[in-house]
Parts: sequence; structure tokens; C-alpha cells
Amino acid sequence: MFEEKTVLRIPGPTPVPPEVTRAMTHAMIGHRSGDFSSLLAEVEASLRDLFQTSGDVAVIAGTGTGGLEAAVYSMVHAGDRVLAISTGNFGDRFTEIARRTEADVISLNCEWGQPAKVEEVARILAEHSDIRVVLLTHCETSTGVLNNVQQIAHITQEYGAYLIVDAVSSFVGSPLPMDEWNVDVVVTGSQKALGLPPGLALVAMSSRAIERVKNGPAARSFYFDLKRYQKGLGDSTTPWTPPVSLIYGLRESLLMIQEEGLQQAQRRHRLLRDMTRAGIRAMGLSLVVNDEKSASDTVTTVFVPDADQVCKVMKNDLHIVVAGGQKQLSGKIIRIGHMGYVDASDMLQCLAALEIALVKTGYKMELGAGVRAAQEVYLHASNSRD
Amino acid sequence: MFEEKTVLRIPGPTPVPPEVTRAMTHAMIGHRSGDFSSLLAEVEASLRDLFQTSGDVAVIAGTGTGGLEAAVYSMVHAGDRVLAISTGNFGDRFTEIARRTEADVISLNCEWGQPAKVEEVARILAEHSDIRVVLLTHCETSTGVLNNVQQIAHITQEYGAYLIVDAVSSFVGSPLPMDEWNVDVVVTGSQKALGLPPGLALVAMSSRAIERVKNGPAARSFYFDLKRYQKGLGDSTTPWTPPVSLIYGLRESLLMIQEEGLQQAQRRHRLLRDMTRAGIRAMGLSLVVNDEKSASDTVTTVFVPDADQVCKVMKNDLHIVVAGGQKQLSGKIIRIGHMGYVDASDMLQCLAALEIALVKTGYKMELGAGVRAAQEVYLHASNSRD
Repeated sequence: MFEEKTVLRIPGPTPVPPEVTRAMTHAMIGHRSGDFSSLLAEVEASLRDLFQTSGDVAVIAGTGTGGLEAAVYSMVHAGDRVLAISTGNFGDRFTEIARRTEADVISLNCEWGQPAKVEEVARILAEHSDIRVVLLTHCETSTGVLNNVQQIAHITQEYGAYLIVDAVSSFVGSPLPMDEWNVDVVVTGSQKALGLPPGLALVAMSSRAIERVKNGPAARSFYFDLKRYQKGLGDSTTPWTPPVSLIYGLRESLLMIQEEGLQQAQRRHRLLRDMTRAGIRAMGLSLVVNDEKSASDTVTTVFVPDADQVCKVMKNDLHIVVAGGQKQLSGKIIRIGHMGYVDASDMLQCLAALEIALVKTGYKMELGAGVRAAQEVYLHASNSRD
Repeated sequence: MFEEKTVLRIPGPTPVPPEVTRAMTHAMIGHRSGDFSSLLAEVEASLRDLFQTSGDVAVIAGTGTGGLEAAVYSMVHAGDRVLAISTGNFGDRFTEIARRTEADVISLNCEWGQPAKVEEVARILAEHSDIRVVLLTHCETSTGVLNNVQQIAHITQEYGAYLIVDAVSSFVGSPLPMDEWNVDVVVTGSQKALGLPPGLALVAMSSRAIERVKNGPAARSFYFDLKRYQKGLGDSTTPWTPPVSLIYGLRESLLMIQEEGLQQAQRRHRLLRDMTRAGIRAMGLSLVVNDEKSASDTVTTVFVPDADQVCKVMKNDLHIVVAGGQKQLSGKIIRIGHMGYVDASDMLQCLAALEIALVKTGYKMELGAGVRAAQEVYLHASNSRD
């Protein structure tokens, strides 16, 4: 009975607000019509605000990985030297995409659970002054690490390189004012904090990035050539058939974020993170990311004895779905998503369900302790706000 | 942003499952078509199973109150003596409907928070052997009392009277096998444990009730004359235009209940009640209904200092809506609905949010204590099940 009621607390896809679901039921329209151009122009203007850029935002039928491919293939030219920073599974994927190009890729593989060290990035850039493009994951979804984009962007700019940031799971949840921080390309997907179904990649380009894309050779991919998307935006059109329904949904999602306010949305994500982390600590469990400064606003990762069984009990008995670990963390951790259409009550529910699953799988703890710690964080924030 | 996310924990309307919402988007069909007759026949068969009767179930465009009016106007004839038992606000409404007829109505008004005393009903029936119809509320939604239908039906039958039961807020949640218990008419509405939007009244008639309706005079109301609905069912049709979309939704809702199983649904409601009551007690609050035997399976009523403010904080800050008190209990209690599309995680969330609202409004308690007590009830039930 509750199959479809199951609450998604994985780090994406996230629950879709009913307003967005409804918007996506709009009757189909022709994608070369004036109606579609108006829709795209409206969405494009909101996206520029949200990415905090005066550049352009390509709206691509595809997912985050496709967006990363579009960014890399359009920004990296044959023979370029590229620094690919990886802090986990999604950093590795970013690196792999770069390796498909005819560029010379230098990998910086950081320890899982740790952010990229800014000094190390600086050292490599100093050593290889011909690095043209740097690839960095903002929130590493596999470990729950939030990398320091601002500082790395600062160094990258000093060395005259371009910075492409994978913000798939951090976008909206964590601050990333791309023009202010001198980030050249930011990539995200629809199924995270935007609260849409998967199927849309968004690739924001700074004016510097636009120049490079425009003046570069044809990209390795025809479909993912940002030149074509950027050119189309001049006429509020897309190079290939766009996913019309998702773009109706995106308009609604952007309106909802506007209504809440980006800063408030970020404060909310931070609060949910802090509630979750306090709850986890009070249960006597260990966080994968101990340093608050490097802890993701959108996903919390936790070492859990019998992690897979805990996930199973939470889903089957309590209808709450959290994610397990990936690769080397498989079976060792759970990952709790708190991004998008999620509020404080949701996290209290998730923590209460986790406590039950822990006790059911033999873990010794005081029931209610995690919930209480999260309630205290909530009340403290609420009292300072009032 | 979270306006539409707000979780309904009032005693109806209740959250509508997405399966039901989807079913209601079926294209409109003609209500005199074969397609509609098949739909109604299918629904009627499931409804007979759910009401546990070999009689008929009228499907009426209207709400629970309309269903009560249909039952009273069709079963009570001019000059009849009627016993109207009231244990609260909805019992009073039932009585008022009876007073619109040309019957002689005897009222039994019980203390709010207490169930009707079976001995007292027996005494009145013994005193007035000409009582033809008895009106009884199963779950009194204003106080959270569950009346003892089985025993009162037994006595009513002994005295040869008909029993009409308002099961609007108890249906599905609490056992009410109408043929087995000799209940003549059972009324419910769509917006409670059936998980549909408001707009449908269901009036089940035992074979004895069908005889009385068929052989009685035209009802006081043309629209609510059960004679017409009962006659229509022979041809799987309705006397007036039926609310087609709601009936598509009803079919889906009945399938979902069938899939879960009525007994399991009732066990679930009982568990949610027990979790809620344990949680409330652990918070140091007083329940309106202390005796477990008379406590509703679908709504829990609680004395709360500053009740209205608590409701407000829960809604505005935590996006959980519980109901306040009615009439003499207004401002003194909150009413927590746990009926229909609701699971254990939902109640943990509701209790955690209530704790925050209590502390925010100045109530002294140990945070997490209510959640813990509910978790313990859950684990205990879960361990005995495994």
C-alpha cells in the first residue's frame, strides 16, 4: 500500500513538489513555437539569477553526467593540459570524461572523506603552468564532502586556467556565486535541489567561458557541443528538441525557489544538515566528514554497523529510503539526502526511523536521543531567528 | 514554498495517495454509459466486502452529513419515535437531522469525552418500547471517543429497533462488520480513511434496512431518498449524475485497501493510535479519552496548554497540521488524525513536531521523550510480529 508513499531521503532524485508535477502536465506545445521561446526566455532569465552569472545557461536534455560531458568537451581542446581533482566516485567520473578527450590529464586523487587541499592544488598549478582547465566537484555525493570552490577558483584564476565545477548535488543548497567567485562553468542536474525528475542538465557559462566555447573548435560530441546551445539562446531556442514538460516543471521550480529566496533556501539546507549531524552524533554514530567546514549541506554520510540491513529496515518497515555507500564505502555507510523539497519535520522523521532501524539491527542506543539533539538544533536556530 | 507540502494530520480530509489522484484524472465518461455501469458494479462489489454486508451500498454525491441525512430521512418515518445518542459535536448534528423529520426524537446526551453507556441505552429502550430507530456515532470526531457499536446494536436488535451508525471517521480504521453485528445502516464519507477528496457519501443498508426503505413513504428529501439509489443499483446506475472522477478514485482506494487487507489496515490504525497515545503520555500531557477501550483508532485528542498556539507553530514552522477543539473543547485540546494513508513514520514525525511546538510555547518537557515512547510501542509490536 505504501510503495509510492516511500519518502526519498537519498541524495537525488528528490521528492517532486506537487506544484512542479502539475506544471509538467501542461499540454504539449511545439518546440519551435513562440510559446516555447517565451518559456525558455523566462527560464533562462531565472537561471542566470540562480547561478548568479551574467553569462548563459544551456538547458540540455540529459542528466548531470551529460552536462559534465558538454562542459568538458566544449571547454577542453585537443592538447590542453587539464587538472582533474577527484575526492570520490563522482570526481572519478569527471576525470574519466576528461580522459576521453585528447587532452593531457593530470589527476589529483584525494582521500575519500577529505576535501581537496587548496595548497596541493596550488602546488600542482605552480608546477604545471600550462594547465588550461581545472575540474572540481563541489559536493562529492559519494562521501558527503563539500570542496572549497571559492579558494580553488581564486588560485585557478591566478594561474589563468578555467574552472569547471560539478555542482550537480550542491546547486541551490550551498552558495556558489559563480561570477563573484570567478568560476567559469557550473554544471547541475534537475533531480537534486531543483526538485524535478531527472532528465535536464544545466550548464552555466561565464562570459569568459562563452568566449572560449565560441572561438574553440567543434566539440568532440555533436549533441553536447555548448556552442550550439549558446548560439540558440540568442533566439530563445535550443539546438535539438528540448524536453518541453521538464522545462515547464523547471519554470515552476524556479518560481518556488524565488519565492523562498535563495539565501533562505541555503539557510534551510544548512539547518537540515546541522540537525542531521547533531542527531547522528547523539546516536553515537561516526560521521564520514568530521569537519563542519567540509560537510555537505545536501547529503550527510554516516558510518553504520550493518548499513545495508539498516537501509532495508528503513525502507520496508518505515517507508523511508536512504542510500548506501558506493565503491570502497559500500556496506559501510549510509547517505542521507536533505536537498530540495525537504523541511525540518522530514529530518526528524528520518532520524526517528533510523533509530528504530538501528535498534532493530542490534545497535545499542537510547531511543529518541538523535531526535532530541536535532530538535535542540532546530529550537536554537528558531529562537535566534525569532 | 511548503504550503502544499503541509502534512494533514487532522481527522479528515486526509492525504490522498498519488495512485488515487492519478485514477481521478481518468478522462470523463458519460454516466449513463456501459463503462460507468461496469465501474459502479465493480465498486459496489468491493464496498459490500468492505462494509461486510450482503445488502446494498448507495454511492451519493455529497459529504458525510448528506449521507446521514439520506439515512435518517429514508429510515425514519413520520410519527416514529427515535433515540438519538450524542457523545459530542457530530452526535449533536445527527440529532439535529432527526429533528428535521416529523419523528418524536428522544435525545441521550452523554458527557463529552465519555462513550455512551450501554446500560443507559438499554434503560431508555426498555422505557420506550416504541422506539423504531436508534442513531449512534461510532467515532465521535470532536472528542476522540469510540462508541461500543457491537453492544448497542445487540440491545437495539433485542428491542426490534433499527440502528443507524455514523461511521464517517471510523470506517476502515475500526472494525464494524455490519451484518454480523446487526447494524442496519452505516454511513461514511470519502475524505477519511478511504483517502479520497471530500465529495462522496456512502450509505450501506442491510437487507432489513432495504426492506424498510423500499416499503416506506417517499423521503422528506428528493435528492437523498435512498429508495432511488437502492433501485438504481439493480442496473448499476445512480439516480442522479454521479461524481465520476471520485468514483474512479474510489475504485483505486478500494483496491489499495484490498491489497493491504482490511484486518491489516485495522491493525495498522490501532498501532498508530497506540504509538500516539504512548507518545502523548510520555510528554506528560493528558488524553481526553483515558480508557483504551473507548479511544478512537483514527483520532487522538489531547489536552494541551495554549492549544491554538501549538497548532499554529506546528503548521507555520513545521508544516504539520493538527486540528483544534470544537465547541466546549475549543482552545483546550488538539486533535491528531491518524487515519487512511498514514504510517508509523508519519506519527513519529508528528510527535517530534508537537514536542518542538510545546517547548516553543513554554511547556516544560524532555525533548524526544514522546518520540521514544512511540518508538518503543512500534518496536514492541514489530518484535511480536517478526
